[in-house]
Amino acid sequence: MAKRWSVYLSGEIHSDWRERITAGIEAAGLPVELTAPITDHGASDECGVAILGREDTRAWTDHKGASVNAIRTRTLISAADVVVVRFGDKYKQWNAAFDAGYASALGKPIITLHDESIGHALKEVDAAALAVAETPDQVVRLLDYVITGKL
Amino acid sequence: MAKRWSVYLSGEIHSDWRERITAGIEAAGLPVELTAPITDHGASDECGVAILGREDTRAWTDHKGASVNAIRTRTLISAADVVVVRFGDKYKQWNAAFDAGYASALGKPIITLHDESIGHALKEVDAAALAVAETPDQVVRLLDYVITGKL
Amino acid sequence: MAKRWSVYLSGEIHSDWRERITAGIEAAGLPVELTAPITDHGASDECGVAILGREDTRAWTDHKGASVNAIRTRTLISAADVVVVRFGDKYKQWNAAFDAGYASALGKPIITLHDESIGHALKEVDAAALAVAETPDQVVRLLDYVITGKL
Amino acid sequence: MAKRWSVYLSGEIHSDWRERITAGIEAAGLPVELTAPITDHGASDECGVAILGREDTRAWTDHKGASVNAIRTRTLISAADVVVVRFGDKYKQWNAAFDAGYASALGKPIITLHDESIGHALKEVDAAALAVAETPDQVVRLLDYVITGKL
Amino acid sequence: MAKRWSVYLSGEIHSDWRERITAGIEAAGLPVELTAPITDHGASDECGVAILGREDTRAWTDHKGASVNAIRTRTLISAADVVVVRFGDKYKQWNAAFDAGYASALGKPIITLHDESIGHALKEVDAAALAVAETPDQVVRLLDYVITGKL
Amino acid sequence: MAKRWSVYLSGEIHSDWRERITAGIEAAGLPVELTAPITDHGASDECGVAILGREDTRAWTDHKGASVNAIRTRTLISAADVVVVRFGDKYKQWNAAFDAGYASALGKPIITLHDESIGHALKEVDAAALAVAETPDQVVRLLDYVITGKL
Amino acid sequence: MAKRWSVYLSGEIHSDWRERITAGIEAAGLPVELTAPITDHGASDECGVAILGREDTRAWTDHKGASVNAIRTRTLISAADVVVVRFGDKYKQWNAAFDAGYASALGKPIITLHDESIGHALKEVDAAALAVAETPDQVVRLLDYVITGKL
Amino acid sequence: MAKRWSVYLSGEIHSDWRERITAGIEAAGLPVELTAPITDHGASDECGVAILGREDTRAWTDHKGASVNAIRTRTLISAADVVVVRFGDKYKQWNAAFDAGYASALGKPIITLHDESIGHALKEVDAAALAVAETPDQVVRLLDYVITGKL
Repeated sequence: MAKRWSVYLSGEIHSDWRERITAGIEAAGLPVELTAPITDHGASDECGVAILGREDTRAWTDHKGASVNAIRTRTLISAADVVVVRFGDKYKQWNAAFDAGYASALGKPIITLHDESIGHALKEVDAAALAVAETPDQVVRLLDYVITGKL
Repeated sequence: MAKRWSVYLSGEIHSDWRERITAGIEAAGLPVELTAPITDHGASDECGVAILGREDTRAWTDHKGASVNAIRTRTLISAADVVVVRFGDKYKQWNAAFDAGYASALGKPIITLHDESIGHALKEVDAAALAVAETPDQVVRLLDYVITGKL
Repeated sequence: MAKRWSVYLSGEIHSDWRERITAGIEAAGLPVELTAPITDHGASDECGVAILGREDTRAWTDHKGASVNAIRTRTLISAADVVVVRFGDKYKQWNAAFDAGYASALGKPIITLHDESIGHALKEVDAAALAVAETPDQVVRLLDYVITGKL
Repeated sequence: MAKRWSVYLSGEIHSDWRERITAGIEAAGLPVELTAPITDHGASDECGVAILGREDTRAWTDHKGASVNAIRTRTLISAADVVVVRFGDKYKQWNAAFDAGYASALGKPIITLHDESIGHALKEVDAAALAVAETPDQVVRLLDYVITGKL
Repeated sequence: MAKRWSVYLSGEIHSDWRERITAGIEAAGLPVELTAPITDHGASDECGVAILGREDTRAWTDHKGASVNAIRTRTLISAADVVVVRFGDKYKQWNAAFDAGYASALGKPIITLHDESIGHALKEVDAAALAVAETPDQVVRLLDYVITGKL
Repeated sequence: MAKRWSVYLSGEIHSDWRERITAGIEAAGLPVELTAPITDHGASDECGVAILGREDTRAWTDHKGASVNAIRTRTLISAADVVVVRFGDKYKQWNAAFDAGYASALGKPIITLHDESIGHALKEVDAAALAVAETPDQVVRLLDYVITGKL
Repeated sequence: MAKRWSVYLSGEIHSDWRERITAGIEAAGLPVELTAPITDHGASDECGVAILGREDTRAWTDHKGASVNAIRTRTLISAADVVVVRFGDKYKQWNAAFDAGYASALGKPIITLHDESIGHALKEVDAAALAVAETPDQVVRLLDYVITGKL
Repeated sequence: MAKRWSVYLSGEIHSDWRERITAGIEAAGLPVELTAPITDHGASDECGVAILGREDTRAWTDHKGASVNAIRTRTLISAADVVVVRFGDKYKQWNAAFDAGYASALGKPIITLHDESIGHALKEVDAAALAVAETPDQVVRLLDYVITGKL
């Protein structure tokens, strides 16, 4: 029974990069389980108060929600073999950089995925990564090579 | 001999928040050693190529520099008792969020420092912190209370 | 093969909260393995002396029994992805708070479950939790959201 | 230069047990640094809101305060050689049991200190301890023996 | 799918205690995988030189053999949920005590198994155990209770 | 369900030692999963630039390639029960010695495989190993003995 | 300020080997702090009941005493750079072998000290050691070489 | 009291690179403690047999010596903040690559020091380093910048 690789896809939720990696993994027939945070923006913002009760301020709403999401993200990052961290060209995406730091301290191999145009701002994150990709297809090819040796 | 606390000050380099915390620590006479990344922006960008040789591209210049800076930052974060992470209202500051994630996975107590206005974007980082401050003075008062019990 | 989540249910043994969570998990069809301490109060008190020989004092009877129970509880907490800790409004339940501290130092995500009325006394435990629930149904909904993203 | 032992005194804040241990340590001339949580009940309850801003609810007031206190307690417990955990006969003292679990998972030697009358309720905590004392004087004598071999 | 427990049986190889525990586990239908060192005394002494080449001295013969056996024992102890350590009334059995110390530092729950007559000499090992049994049947009953709650 | 052993085969890629161990494992019917780095020399040198874009220098080509290969090697070494490290009599093979050091710090049992003629140069690596073999057949026999006890 | 080495001396308490190592360290002027268990046999047996109260059985007297001694031994072994473990030719000395296993799992360098005549019985312990000495003088010379390079 | 940095200098013993780094550190007045293996080739080869008794074979002579040296090297690498690994253009220097792997798995920042001409053979080691230097002066300047921020 060959090893199945667990790959966590952290970061941007406003483009279809996860779908493209998923399709590429399937097309290549790779033994990979993809995991990810909850990517429904509304649900991810409201989960805390929706389940545990309304708050009067945005700050505590956020605190409750982010804490609930952390139950998922910390568990799945800790269980991952490889962590892919995607940065889009909009938004702060501090959670993505946080995940990268978290994964790095756990010794997880990291692949970053972003346009070259934001590379300077991401230099500390990239320096902690083992590969810096610009397209989802490159991530798929990296995983294909890493797992099967196929170039 | 009372314990000396090591407090790492991560993040923004464009305002005087470190100086204000340093002054506050001194005024209060707290047994605290403050550590920080290199905050000279130019030096921090160019250190890699200045010492190890020029590169033709911005990307490798950044890679060399960020890696050299990581020798300092990872060592000092690992040695810290408490990590303060400051986010200004400008720039991406992904390195600050990375440091927060790194410190969090190491189990270090984290204090974030930022305006309420950017709190929503920082909700995952704040959720991993034990205190969310808005002013350097609050950070000093937190350390004063934590170390001496004085409110 | 999707990940199965291991969730340890620590704490109170005098109400049906475990049964209600179990029923909720089953109704929702979640990929969760629930684990727990031995909840038969008598067995849990007497296991040490019943198997390893009678003692003349309550203290050593307790010591033997609690040690035997720890073989189970430490193993299952260490293997858990998430630890739920329930506090009822009666009894000291120091073992529940001990389990919460133990899980916290291991970096396990913690959900506490208790009435708001005892929240002040539990503030240190709650501060180490990623979610504070008041009902078993909320715990089920938390797990459902964390695993499937469904609100 | 002989080793100085760091001993953390967790738990009850309504009796003079810490003072009695401190006096005993001094009288015996032991190379021990005693550390402890903030034992000013009012300060410990209000520290979060006093420094970081008022909250409308007791729950968030508690959350802020307990989190700030955790900056101190987790740091000092992690730095301790030995952790003494005191349970009085009143109050829930869940934070003391939490500290014991936290210290236990870190592999710290634990000494519990409580009346025999509450031993049954504390059996899981006592089973994780290397010594169960009933008086502060016994704790001093334990430390004296452990450090100097003197009975 | 219920958890299968991995239980390592360390120590004495001159009596049938492993067979009795194996039979008891099977009779009780417990979900337990038993592991153990190589118990063929001759093979265990000679494995190093038989595979890797003869030595002129007993010391290096022993060194080679013990090192090869350690490939097995360290791997299986590290993978175990529970470690049972058996001491007979003959021989030094320092390897059994070594295994107990090794398992203890890894935080594994330990059950010792020996006659009361040698309890004094084993007091440090017993103090690190969560249960001290005198018969294989007690070990089976401990595992039965720990796994199923059945007394 | 008996344990399957994961054995990582690090080092030389210019002889058929992996094939011989694989054949031996199969012939012996051992429950072993063999893992290894990518052994296609060309692919392993070019993987970085082939997937992530050309570089003008050999140094950065190497850096990209070695980093991509590390995603595989660190993951598989971390997941291994036993690490076999092969040194041929040609080439520097510093990666093999690096892997041995990496595995050693993780506490993995190490078997080295090399001719006696290069033993002096490898003395520090051999001193960290639990067995020093000269032929693939010896490695197979070691694994056979370690897993089944058969000499 | 040169590093001071902490060396823990575990094992036999019936000969003067610790005194001879201490004298040798002093004569050589080495920067070494020697630590050890309590070596007063009577005190070490009775410490538990002397401080915490009499027991009716030898077994609980031993349990209390061994647990109290473990506060010292585990703390000092964890703090040691090097652990020396001495086995005499009499007594079971299971605590010495336990300490060796404990130190080994913590990754501490181990030096064993015993007559060649008991080497076979100690082969598993010796295989986990980095040096096997027969005399206290050899231990001193080992430390001298390791610290100063002087042969 | 500013932090003193501990820097371990691993590798080549046939050139004066350590002396040059030592001189540079002193000239710059940096708060650095340099540590290193025993660099007297003869002593390092013979230490085992010189102290612990002669062996008839080169292999066991080497085994004894390398094990004794490991007492020093593992202790000092574990205590280091930064590890510098030097490769000359002669000899195998597998111990240097082993040290690099060992340091890498412990999460220590690594600086490699070697001529560009052997960079291809060292690509896996360099990929695990945060800086790749060609001269001792560059190492001094790296440490100067990392500690003081001075370029």
